[in-house]
Amino acid sequence: MAKELTKREDNYSQWYNELVIKADLAENSAVRGCMVIKPYGYAIWEKMQAALDKMFKDTGHQNAYFPLFIPKSFFSREASHVEGFAKECAVVTHYRLKADPNGKGVIIDEDSKLEEELIVRPTSETIIWDTYRNWIQSYRDLPILVNQWANVVRWEMRTRLFLRTAEFLWQEGHTAHATEKEAVEEARKMLEVYADFAENWLALPVLKGVKTINERFAGAVDTYCIEALMQDGKALQAGTSHFLGQNFAKAFDVKYLTKENKQEFVWATSWGVSTRLMGALVMAHSDDNGLVLPPKLAPIQVVIVPIYKNEEQLAAISERVLKIKKSIEAKGISVKYDDRDTYKPGWKFAEYELKGVPLRLAIGPRDLEEGTIEVARRDTLEKSTYQQIDIENKVEHLLEAIQKNLYQKALTFRDDLTYKVDTWEEFKHAIDNKGGFVLAHWDGTTDTELKIKEETKATIRTIPLNNPQETGKCIYTGKPSTQRVVFAKAY
Amino acid sequence: MAKELTKREDNYSQWYNELVIKADLAENSAVRGCMVIKPYGYAIWEKMQAALDKMFKDTGHQNAYFPLFIPKSFFSREASHVEGFAKECAVVTHYRLKADPNGKGVIIDEDSKLEEELIVRPTSETIIWDTYRNWIQSYRDLPILVNQWANVVRWEMRTRLFLRTAEFLWQEGHTAHATEKEAVEEARKMLEVYADFAENWLALPVLKGVKTINERFAGAVDTYCIEALMQDGKALQAGTSHFLGQNFAKAFDVKYLTKENKQEFVWATSWGVSTRLMGALVMAHSDDNGLVLPPKLAPIQVVIVPIYKNEEQLAAISERVLKIKKSIEAKGISVKYDDRDTYKPGWKFAEYELKGVPLRLAIGPRDLEEGTIEVARRDTLEKSTYQQIDIENKVEHLLEAIQKNLYQKALTFRDDLTYKVDTWEEFKHAIDNKGGFVLAHWDGTTDTELKIKEETKATIRTIPLNNPQETGKCIYTGKPSTQRVVFAKAY
Repeated sequence: MAKELTKREDNYSQWYNELVIKADLAENSAVRGCMVIKPYGYAIWEKMQAALDKMFKDTGHQNAYFPLFIPKSFFSREASHVEGFAKECAVVTHYRLKADPNGKGVIIDEDSKLEEELIVRPTSETIIWDTYRNWIQSYRDLPILVNQWANVVRWEMRTRLFLRTAEFLWQEGHTAHATEKEAVEEARKMLEVYADFAENWLALPVLKGVKTINERFAGAVDTYCIEALMQDGKALQAGTSHFLGQNFAKAFDVKYLTKENKQEFVWATSWGVSTRLMGALVMAHSDDNGLVLPPKLAPIQVVIVPIYKNEEQLAAISERVLKIKKSIEAKGISVKYDDRDTYKPGWKFAEYELKGVPLRLAIGPRDLEEGTIEVARRDTLEKSTYQQIDIENKVEHLLEAIQKNLYQKALTFRDDLTYKVDTWEEFKHAIDNKGGFVLAHWDGTTDTELKIKEETKATIRTIPLNNPQETGKCIYTGKPSTQRVVFAKAY
Repeated sequence: MAKELTKREDNYSQWYNELVIKADLAENSAVRGCMVIKPYGYAIWEKMQAALDKMFKDTGHQNAYFPLFIPKSFFSREASHVEGFAKECAVVTHYRLKADPNGKGVIIDEDSKLEEELIVRPTSETIIWDTYRNWIQSYRDLPILVNQWANVVRWEMRTRLFLRTAEFLWQEGHTAHATEKEAVEEARKMLEVYADFAENWLALPVLKGVKTINERFAGAVDTYCIEALMQDGKALQAGTSHFLGQNFAKAFDVKYLTKENKQEFVWATSWGVSTRLMGALVMAHSDDNGLVLPPKLAPIQVVIVPIYKNEEQLAAISERVLKIKKSIEAKGISVKYDDRDTYKPGWKFAEYELKGVPLRLAIGPRDLEEGTIEVARRDTLEKSTYQQIDIENKVEHLLEAIQKNLYQKALTFRDDLTYKVDTWEEFKHAIDNKGGFVLAHWDGTTDTELKIKEETKATIRTIPLNNPQETGKCIYTGKPSTQRVVFAKAY
C-alpha cells in the first residue's frame, strides 16, 4: 500500500496530497474546502495542542471562548481589517428552514431573515475587542492574557488539506496591555514560544523576523512570523504574532484609567498557529515511504511486531513482548503491540512506515532464544539487533536521537538551500532553480516588492530579527539598501 | 460584592443569572444568544473536558474533527431528523462581502450566492454518516469509535447562559457497529460513563433511564439519558446517549460486508454532553454566598490569604506560606497564594467564597508563633484551626471529604424531593408545590403524556433502567399501567 505513493522528486505536490490521505491524516468532505481530520491526524494535532497549551499557560495565559459569529458591521470598524478579512467569508443570513411546499426537502423561511448578517469568524479581534471594552476599566484590569482554541472560516477558492482549507482549527491569543512596550514584548515573547515549539516539538528550524508592510496582518502595526523551509524549497509561514498598537482599542473604544487618573487607549497583540502546522510537519520530514514523525508528536512512538509461524510461537512471543511493552511504557513512551493475525509482518512494516511510527521493534522465535530484538528507525530506515536487556533505556535514547536527527537534517537542508545573491540574474536563477531562502538587498518599497513577486512569484518572507546591517544595492532597482531580506516562493 | 447576590429563595432564576456573571463564568455577547465563556468558567469546562476525554479514551474511543457546515439536503435524508433539527438553525447563503457603493460598510456580494445553502451544524450525524460511507467496507472496518469536541448552533429563541444558548460547546460521540446488540451495548456503556462522570466529578446524583417516544432524539430508536435535580426542584437533562438503529446507515447508504459475505446496513449510536453541564454544576451545589465547586473541578482548589499589618509581617508569613504551598502542590493540588496588597482579607474571603474555592487557608502573625493555620470549608462554611504540621495531608483529606459531602447533600436533597403519587390531585400538588421527581403510573401513550404536560408543565423525564414492574392505574386516564415513570418540570 505505501509503495503506491508518488515519489517526491516526481511530483512533490501530488506526493503530499496522497500522503495526507494514505496515512489517514485527513480527507476532503462533502462541503467544498472543508476537511475531515481523521483520528490519526487528530491525535497528532492533540499532541501539538497539549504542548502549545502548556507553553501558553506557563507564560501566564488563560483560555476562554468567544462567539463563532460576528456582526457584519464589526468588520467595518477597523479600516484595514475589513480589507483583509471581511471579503471571502461565510455569511449567515437566515435562522430558520421550513418544509418545501413543492417537495420533500426544506427551504429557507424568508421570515427568518436576520436584521444584520452574521459572519462566521475568520479571526476574532473584532468580537473580542468589543468584549474587552466591558472587561477593562482601569490599569488594575490589565494585562489581559487570553487564548482561544477555535475553528475559523475563510472562504478560500483553492484549497489543500491542512495547508489551505475553508474551515481550519487554530488558537488565537488576544492580549491587552497598558503600555506599548509591554504589548511589543508580549508579541515578541509569543514569537519565541512559537519558535521554541517549532524547533523542539516539530523538529523544524525556523527563521524569526518581521513582515513587510505588504505582508502584514490586516490591522497590525507589526507582524512577527516564523518561517520554515519545506523539502521542495518553498517557504511556509508557520506562525504569526501581531503587535496591533491601539488600532482595535480605538475601533472599539477600549480605554483604561491610568495610575495617574488619565483615560488612555489600550495596547493589543494577537497571535496564532493553526492546523496548517500539520501540513508543515508532513512536508518537512516525510519521505517516499510515508510519514516521518518527530517522536514528541507521534501518537504511537514504538510499535512491536511479532514474527511467528504458529499459535504456540505467538503465545511465547506475546508473553515476552508484554513485559517489554510494560517496561517501555513505564518511561512514559506510547507503545502499540500489533499482534493481529489478519495481516503479515511485511504488511505491518509498510503500514507503520507509512504512518511514520519512529521506532519499530520486531521479535521472532530466534530472538526469544537469543534474548535479542530487531530495532528499526523510521528516520534513517536503519535496522539493528539489540539485546532485550535494558531495552527501555535504549528505546528512550533512540527516540531522543531521532528527534534531534530530524531537526539537524532539516537544519542542514535549510542551510544548504539558503543563498546570498547580489544581482537580479542570480536572484532569478536561485528562485527558479532549487528554491530555498534567498537573501538579497531590497530598496524597502512595496512597489519593488510587488514587481519582484509578479516577475518571479517570490515574496519577502521576513526581515529577520537582529538582521545584520550592511550597505548594498536593491537587486531589482539598484537603489541603496541597508540590509538583506529573505525572499522565497511560499505556500 | 458577593453580598449583593439575590437569594435563592427570593428568586432562584435571578440568583442563577447573577451568579454566572458575578463569579466570572460567562456573559452575553454582542451576538444574540451567543455567550462568552470567561477564563474562570472556561477553566472549569477544561477540567470537565479532560476528565471526560480520558474516560472516552479509556473505553477505546478516538477523537476526530468533522466540518462545521452541513449541506442543507443532508438533513432531509433522515425523515425524523429533519423535523427535529433542520428548523431553527443558522443558514449560510453567501461566501463574499463587498464594499457598499453607497456607504462606508460592507454588503453581501450577490454573485457569491451558494448553489446549496449550508447549515451550521446543530448536531453532526448527517455529515459524519456521509463520511463513514467511505470508511466502512467490511466487518474489519468496524467498530468505529469516534468522538468530536466541537461548537454547535441551535437558534434558540429564549436563551440563558450555559443552559440554553444559540452556540454551545459539546462533545458528540458517533459510533458504527456490525450488530444491533453491540450498538445497544455501546449506547448503554456511554450512559454509564456519563453517570460515572456526573456522580464522581460533578458530585451530582443522576437517574439513568430511557426517554419516551415523545422525548426521543430526532432520528433515534432509543434515547438513554441521565437526569439530575436542581435546588429549585426542576430536573435537568445532563447527558444523552442514543441508539440510532440503522436509520442513518440507511439514509446515507452505509453498508458493510459481513464475514458471511453479505451486505448489511451498519448500526449506530451517538452521545453527547455540553456546556449545559456548567449550568447544572452551578445550580446543583451553589448557595447564597456564591459558587460551591466540587474540588475535582475547581480551577483553584485551595487559596491562602495572609493576614498582616505591615510589610515585615507579610514577609514572615509569605516565607512560611510558600513552604506550605509547595507541600500541598506536591500532592497534585492547585493552590493560589493571594498576597495582593490592593485588597483587604475580608474582601478576599468574600471573593473566593463567590468563586467557590473549596478550601481557604488564612494565616496571621499569631498563627506563625503558634504553628497554626485557619482552614475554612466552602461547602459547610465551617472554620477550624489546624496545626501547620502535616497540613498537606489534612488538606488532601478535607478536599476528598468536601467532594463526598457535596454528592451526599445532593443525594439527600433529591431523595427528599422524590415522591410516589397515585392520584391526579396528588400529582398536581406535588408538581406545583416543591417540584422534584414525581413517580407515577402512566398509560404509555404520547397523547396522555402531552395532556399532562399541557396541564402541569411536567414532562416524563425518564423511564428508569431496571424499573420495578408493578400494576397500577394511569394518574391521568386511569388506564392500566405496568410501571411508574419519572415526571418533573424541567430545564
